[in-house]
Amino acid sequence: MIPSTHRQVRLAARPAGYPRESDFRLVTSPVPEPGEREFLVRVIYLSLDPYMRGRMSDARSYVPAVVLGDVMEGGVVGEVLRSNHPGFSVGDVVEGRFGWQEYALSAGKGVRKIDPTIAPISTALGVLGMPGLTAYFGLLEVGQPKSGETVVVSAASGAVGGLVGQIAKLKGCRAVGLAGSDAKADYITRELGYDAGINYRTVPDLNAALQAACPSGVDVYFDNVGGRITETVSRHVNLFARFAVCGLMSQYNLTEPELAPRNERFVLTNRVRIQGFIVFDFAARYKEGLAQLTEWVGQGKLKYREDMVDGLERAPGALIGLLQGKNFGKVIVRVGPDPVGLRAPVPAARSGAEGRR
Amino acid sequence: MIPSTHRQVRLAARPAGYPRESDFRLVTSPVPEPGEREFLVRVIYLSLDPYMRGRMSDARSYVPAVVLGDVMEGGVVGEVLRSNHPGFSVGDVVEGRFGWQEYALSAGKGVRKIDPTIAPISTALGVLGMPGLTAYFGLLEVGQPKSGETVVVSAASGAVGGLVGQIAKLKGCRAVGLAGSDAKADYITRELGYDAGINYRTVPDLNAALQAACPSGVDVYFDNVGGRITETVSRHVNLFARFAVCGLMSQYNLTEPELAPRNERFVLTNRVRIQGFIVFDFAARYKEGLAQLTEWVGQGKLKYREDMVDGLERAPGALIGLLQGKNFGKVIVRVGPDPVGLRAPVPAARSGAEGRR
Repeated sequence: MIPSTHRQVRLAARPAGYPRESDFRLVTSPVPEPGEREFLVRVIYLSLDPYMRGRMSDARSYVPAVVLGDVMEGGVVGEVLRSNHPGFSVGDVVEGRFGWQEYALSAGKGVRKIDPTIAPISTALGVLGMPGLTAYFGLLEVGQPKSGETVVVSAASGAVGGLVGQIAKLKGCRAVGLAGSDAKADYITRELGYDAGINYRTVPDLNAALQAACPSGVDVYFDNVGGRITETVSRHVNLFARFAVCGLMSQYNLTEPELAPRNERFVLTNRVRIQGFIVFDFAARYKEGLAQLTEWVGQGKLKYREDMVDGLERAPGALIGLLQGKNFGKVIVRVGPDPVGLRAPVPAARSGAEGRR
Repeated sequence: MIPSTHRQVRLAARPAGYPRESDFRLVTSPVPEPGEREFLVRVIYLSLDPYMRGRMSDARSYVPAVVLGDVMEGGVVGEVLRSNHPGFSVGDVVEGRFGWQEYALSAGKGVRKIDPTIAPISTALGVLGMPGLTAYFGLLEVGQPKSGETVVVSAASGAVGGLVGQIAKLKGCRAVGLAGSDAKADYITRELGYDAGINYRTVPDLNAALQAACPSGVDVYFDNVGGRITETVSRHVNLFARFAVCGLMSQYNLTEPELAPRNERFVLTNRVRIQGFIVFDFAARYKEGLAQLTEWVGQGKLKYREDMVDGLERAPGALIGLLQGKNFGKVIVRVGPDPVGLRAPVPAARSGAEGRR
């Protein structure tokens, strides 16, 4: 039974600083009918990610902003309910950018079919999706760690950061993570295998803590946050260190640019390479990346943690929490029931209780 | 006739901010006798370079500071006057790091023999020496310009910057230079072939001037200055732009770090690569670089300008002027007569009157 209407979350206002609930609007709209070569998807899981803050602003970025009044953008896993498309059949589980809504039409562009027998289908939004590929290509291609080197990761318990440290360990590196609570710092060392975890919010002297955690200096820094933390890490770099700049969480919600001492000398003195990247840059190699990540997950070598939120209406609050670091693991909104989730084998390494049901 | 004493410039005090004449001391010392496997050099030309400011400070850098009271370090061209070294004969013209003095002993380590028939021997301190190699490897290996791209160079009339723009043109790029006077901005366009020159000191709106000079954006930025200029260039970068960080002239003489808005977003949004380098990093390839530079000079494809200062006693003032951008071209101190300079053919492309005789 497909209902005649469904719920959507639309962008109501562009935030100044941290988004507020009032920047979103929950609306009811008709469920659309698929036209020729289209199919209808029922959304099961919606991914929430830090990049979404950028889409809410009209500042220049790598993709255009969401138009005011439009459905919020986002990656989704769902099932095909009706199809006039030769490539997609009723019952297919798919991953695509269907946005913050309960039902969506698609013509198939950019849509990936998910095999629900490999892993829980929600992983298509995490370890076996964009965050996994971001960690994989960002660390290995941009960071280029060598065995024996020290890799520092900010937001180390997050969807991407949690994987970066584990991949660093698989490559023979020392992994040091920065996270925003004692529970997260414990988690990354006890569960994920990081060699050291630092709670950057409460540590009395971040500089001294980094010194202690990185006795041989920093060779690779996987940066999800920017700002003061990055500035402190920069004091510990070795010659020819690489910074893989994946995100700037500390900067997204600033209403005024943060003033800081210019921090250019370490780049020259230590011949550092700082490189920004976006997972799309590696689109031609997603297949290779997913194959490796799937193998590692199957072997129990990559653990991940999902912070599950129930109900589309809770997505705005969950995104606001994510931007404040209140999540613990990959934030996923369960928009509708997951009938196939139960069919998938749970990999041995899957870790962590699901969060805020 | 070798005198019994000679003059040296020694470091008298560590400067705060711009060096002053009183930070140096001109002293008279005995001319040493070469021991076994040593030779005595008479200094003809002393190179003055921005990096010397770093050697005067004891802040951590890529090489240790000059010890207080020691002879100032520097690259030199001279002739061998006495030799107990089987590899060097009286009359050889050599380039080495003999420092700010009129005579020097050497055991031959790091010393290069110069062929005075190829080009004026002073070029071993410029286009056919460290500045030439810096421009060559920094632009081509770190900047990696592709034909048709736009290359922006700061300190574009300097010893390195003047060459970077010309090499960029040889590689089919658009070259845009930033310089500190109208005469320099004119020189780089009229003499060196830069497509545009901007006097950053007087231009009313540097941002608008860069926009006009780089209608297709900036692909490569060869940075000699850092600071505000670099920040402004960063607003014009194209996707996958490369910054080759060669120097930070705007920062060397600051007594307090300059506060500025954190400037991290452009790196992520445009997937920029910022990379510091030092010419030593390419030491294994100097031969290749010098061969190409020599060929270009011989073909008249690389022009250069020397800002010649007569007398070792004027070296401190000339270095202070260099750090303030008062030089025009490669700063060289003529410490003693150049009997071989007259023997060398003057390449067709050599440009510019010598400066402050």
